[in-house]
Amino acid sequence: MSFARLGGGLAACLFAVVSFAAEPLSPAALAEARALRERALVDDTAYELVRSLTTEVGPRLAGSPGDARAVAWAVQKLQALGFTNVRTEPVSVQRWIRGEARAEIVAPWPQALVVAALGGSVATTAEGIEAEVVPVASLEDLKAQPPGRIAGRIVFFSKRMERSRDGSGYGKTVPPRGSGAAEAARLGAVAMVMRSAGTSVSRTPHTGAQRFADGIPSIPAFALSNPDADLLEQQLASGQPVRLRVTSTSRWDGEAQSANVIGEIAGRGDRKDEVIVLGAHLDSWDLGTGAHDDATGIGIIAAAAKLAGEARPRPARTIRVVFFANEEFGLTGAKAYAANHAGAMDKHVLGLESDLGGFRPFGLLARVPPDKLPLVRTIHSVLEPLGVAWLGTEASGGADVGQLRALGVPVMDLATDAEPYFDLHHTANDTFDKVDPELVRRNVAAYAVIAYLAAEAEGGFGRLPVASKTAP
Amino acid sequence: MSFARLGGGLAACLFAVVSFAAEPLSPAALAEARALRERALVDDTAYELVRSLTTEVGPRLAGSPGDARAVAWAVQKLQALGFTNVRTEPVSVQRWIRGEARAEIVAPWPQALVVAALGGSVATTAEGIEAEVVPVASLEDLKAQPPGRIAGRIVFFSKRMERSRDGSGYGKTVPPRGSGAAEAARLGAVAMVMRSAGTSVSRTPHTGAQRFADGIPSIPAFALSNPDADLLEQQLASGQPVRLRVTSTSRWDGEAQSANVIGEIAGRGDRKDEVIVLGAHLDSWDLGTGAHDDATGIGIIAAAAKLAGEARPRPARTIRVVFFANEEFGLTGAKAYAANHAGAMDKHVLGLESDLGGFRPFGLLARVPPDKLPLVRTIHSVLEPLGVAWLGTEASGGADVGQLRALGVPVMDLATDAEPYFDLHHTANDTFDKVDPELVRRNVAAYAVIAYLAAEAEGGFGRLPVASKTAP
Repeated sequence: MSFARLGGGLAACLFAVVSFAAEPLSPAALAEARALRERALVDDTAYELVRSLTTEVGPRLAGSPGDARAVAWAVQKLQALGFTNVRTEPVSVQRWIRGEARAEIVAPWPQALVVAALGGSVATTAEGIEAEVVPVASLEDLKAQPPGRIAGRIVFFSKRMERSRDGSGYGKTVPPRGSGAAEAARLGAVAMVMRSAGTSVSRTPHTGAQRFADGIPSIPAFALSNPDADLLEQQLASGQPVRLRVTSTSRWDGEAQSANVIGEIAGRGDRKDEVIVLGAHLDSWDLGTGAHDDATGIGIIAAAAKLAGEARPRPARTIRVVFFANEEFGLTGAKAYAANHAGAMDKHVLGLESDLGGFRPFGLLARVPPDKLPLVRTIHSVLEPLGVAWLGTEASGGADVGQLRALGVPVMDLATDAEPYFDLHHTANDTFDKVDPELVRRNVAAYAVIAYLAAEAEGGFGRLPVASKTAP
Repeated sequence: MSFARLGGGLAACLFAVVSFAAEPLSPAALAEARALRERALVDDTAYELVRSLTTEVGPRLAGSPGDARAVAWAVQKLQALGFTNVRTEPVSVQRWIRGEARAEIVAPWPQALVVAALGGSVATTAEGIEAEVVPVASLEDLKAQPPGRIAGRIVFFSKRMERSRDGSGYGKTVPPRGSGAAEAARLGAVAMVMRSAGTSVSRTPHTGAQRFADGIPSIPAFALSNPDADLLEQQLASGQPVRLRVTSTSRWDGEAQSANVIGEIAGRGDRKDEVIVLGAHLDSWDLGTGAHDDATGIGIIAAAAKLAGEARPRPARTIRVVFFANEEFGLTGAKAYAANHAGAMDKHVLGLESDLGGFRPFGLLARVPPDKLPLVRTIHSVLEPLGVAWLGTEASGGADVGQLRALGVPVMDLATDAEPYFDLHHTANDTFDKVDPELVRRNVAAYAVIAYLAAEAEGGFGRLPVASKTAP
């Protein structure tokens, strides 16, 4: 650790205090973590898990036959890798059937469009719905339309996602996916189409969950690929009315059972009842094989935990991997885990998640009490040779592990390159051929180091304030 | 022109002889060509034509309603651009209807695959065809399989196309597309699937024409996207039998009428009955909007001819643009043009074609009698500031204009970057958003310069030997 890397005066001050106290990590533990990092950089356990899950299971939408196969796959793989206490915890999910979706421009110039139904969308009649298209830039723009402009028409959310390493463009374009159909229906729209909340220039639309508000009629909702949204905009630019016909056979199909799958690398001695949680989600969208979302996460955390468990001394705390069910369609797996383990939150020492694909790690964030930042920076020093910079304290924990953060569990985030991720995320192109084994190894190395040192650190990471409600 | 750039001793020798004769191009013509090049580099006529054709017509498979709309569009656009003698010449085409195609791995691990029927493929029954997959690397590998290995099975051509600027990987992977199904059927196969003859890593399969040999039963034929072919190979690598089910409703639908569309920039004076032919094809495959194949060609040659016609002095020879019908499904437009104009081949002074997309021009080739190479190199000197290198005499003329070359017409090829082209070619991703206006302008500049100087050059380009049959 060097002073030059410290984020600010507060951290420097804390460092000065803590550096005279007993160090929470021994030189031997740090040396072993460095050796573990190097072993991970030549280990393909994770890549092989990704290959197996995408090849032998494939798409695994929550509640689908693929999801059930994935649960069985996960139990078998964790057992084969030597995890202990391998178990499933039941999770209820609402099953949605994609069916077939079509869209075509009817006027002024007829052309077929490539679309995907958004998750949770409802069916049209067999003849479909034909209406004029009204383009809007955002939810705010929708609400600002003149009275009567929306009723009986198809709303088109046109905003394009910008590329960036931190994926910040996603949050700016995805809101209509969740609530755009409901807001359009509230104003009398008969269907909703949106430009994909992704950066791909391929005709592979981005799906994802959308929600309906109570008391508003459900209308069909679709994503257009970026090239198809471009074509629609070209026709709209003519100034002539553009009419679209959409058809869909999507439907809900009752409740189904899925499961969180859990396995452990048991700690040694008197701290083995304390756990470091590594999370990823086992479910995926159905258009691709969920390679980067989130088979890489599954592979990375399982391999990292296994490799950390092979370090010597064996980690003091237990390293628990949780393959969450149904991240994509309501986080019911993470919510079930949080509920099931609510009484043991004080034994959850740290949580971290891998759910941004197997791309290049470039930064570390940690949300811990301030007095634990020096410990975090010590751990970070072992990650620096991987090209991982210190990015500060605004860690979220991710969609699933963030549920634990809301219950007081400190979290870290490994920031990875989100630019390629959002070319693939939730599209048919999220497939194994896009996975780079070298980048997967770098992720494994980072997670293994964090898990091992977190399991070894004297005194742990303290507690965060408990949120008044669970994180979004 | 500099000696350093001359290709070899013969060219140098010819140059030495000709340089003392009267120059075929005046300094004034060369100066005007340079000015024309600069004007073309700031002109978006071509890009606007590409936008219009892809937006207002879209896919235009020979014989389809889109094809008929494209013919009407072309006549209107050529007239609006000031071309004279705008006319259509009828072309008969066999109409093929794509219908719907599906494929799924049934065993060992069920997964859906993204496929496209190859052009000319036939239907399956509604239940489809299910059989074990036999992978082969090539047509030669197919023929080398042990007796009985193919009968009753689905043949999978697995070879992957390599990327290259000259597109040379295409010729090495595309042969099974044309004759793979027929050769497999000859050995008793029940269906054929092939890895797409393209470099895209998107799940957008490459379609294209395939042929059946007489006396062999037709079997359904499909292309898998590269990621889907990868998945199939991953399952095959398990060593377990892999079973596939394919279904298709593709069918032939009789004969339809299409047309070549022709327009002219009339020459001046006594050489106006001599023509420089600029060719591109108006039809496209049906999965995308044929942006780079070949709307860019249509836009480039029309804009180049228009701009050349605005040069002063106005070009001596007539510049004729020919929008060929049905390049994709048998070259019947080019063959009809060659037959219709067989008596006027001696008036066809030079032909060139744009059918490799609107990407970066990097080279010029010319197939002319050796004594005309100095003239070609003079023309090339005006192209050099565009980054166009001299690449020699192995010009093909392209698929359509190559038909004229076989009748003795000298041809030039503008070599353009084929690497991005084969990510898009014959796929759903061949759409307008992939067109870069700056690169289109560079193409227009090159074609305009060539057309103008070819129309001006004293003495023309001579004749090539007449082939004993038309080029393939």
